[in-house]
Amino acid sequence: MKNKKLEVSAIENGTVIDHIPAKALFKVISILNLEKVDRQITFGTNLDSKKLGKKAIVKLSDTFFIDNEINKIALVAPQAKLNIIRDYIVIEKKVVEVPEEIMGIAKCMNPKCITNNEKIATRFRVVSRRDVKLKCHYCEKITDQEHLEII
Amino acid sequence: MKNKKLEVSAIENGTVIDHIPAKALFKVISILNLEKVDRQITFGTNLDSKKLGKKAIVKLSDTFFIDNEINKIALVAPQAKLNIIRDYIVIEKKVVEVPEEIMGIAKCMNPKCITNNEKIATRFRVVSRRDVKLKCHYCEKITDQEHLEII
Repeated sequence: MKNKKLEVSAIENGTVIDHIPAKALFKVISILNLEKVDRQITFGTNLDSKKLGKKAIVKLSDTFFIDNEINKIALVAPQAKLNIIRDYIVIEKKVVEVPEEIMGIAKCMNPKCITNNEKIATRFRVVSRRDVKLKCHYCEKITDQEHLEII
Repeated sequence: MKNKKLEVSAIENGTVIDHIPAKALFKVISILNLEKVDRQITFGTNLDSKKLGKKAIVKLSDTFFIDNEINKIALVAPQAKLNIIRDYIVIEKKVVEVPEEIMGIAKCMNPKCITNNEKIATRFRVVSRRDVKLKCHYCEKITDQEHLEII
């Protein structure tokens, strides 16, 4: 069953990521490396949301993530919800969870940190999950949500 | 009339950019600065296309472009077609045209060019439109399609 409308509005198999803050959409795309995915993807952004003001949604055909991978987006979209779709039916719902350790996604806010001066990947321990606070493995400085910059 | 399906599959007023090569979608987003647009946008990518193999489409609600602005995308999506929508109806169709001069979108491929060494915006004259060839205003070297890098 091929139908142009279906292609852009529903997926047969895959993952729907909903409740992304609109401002975080391109960060999510970058964290999940969606520029490189060759399956069908639809994005919608600046959609009205009671919870988030403006939200974005991403629908990925034939694409599934392992928890470790998807949890990275919790840094920028802590309220994101995943629907796993099979045969047009939601077979599983998931929430994202900020992982305990973050490797190489965020930038350390300390300009003197070795990761900002040499070719060393960043590494953080998550010291607060609710309002994300990351403690740098190298310089031990805290990078908070406000200063969070995705590499 | 609010309907969730409509929000992601059709627009009431705005611009639809079709026939973007899938590989060029994020370049088009960057050239048009769509990360900053606060109106509803839907993107679809890796859709089947007889002409392009895999294509992308962008639907922008309540957003219209002047020709100068939209022509910039001809650099990466020379076959792009625009539909201007009013009340769900296509009132105008446009094609994009590589402009005669390009300011600050592409990078000069000459590493010794002043634009690659000092804070000077690039500037090119388009010497071939079909297979894009850009002649740098400063160093006069040619940057061709193959080496074209969007800033």
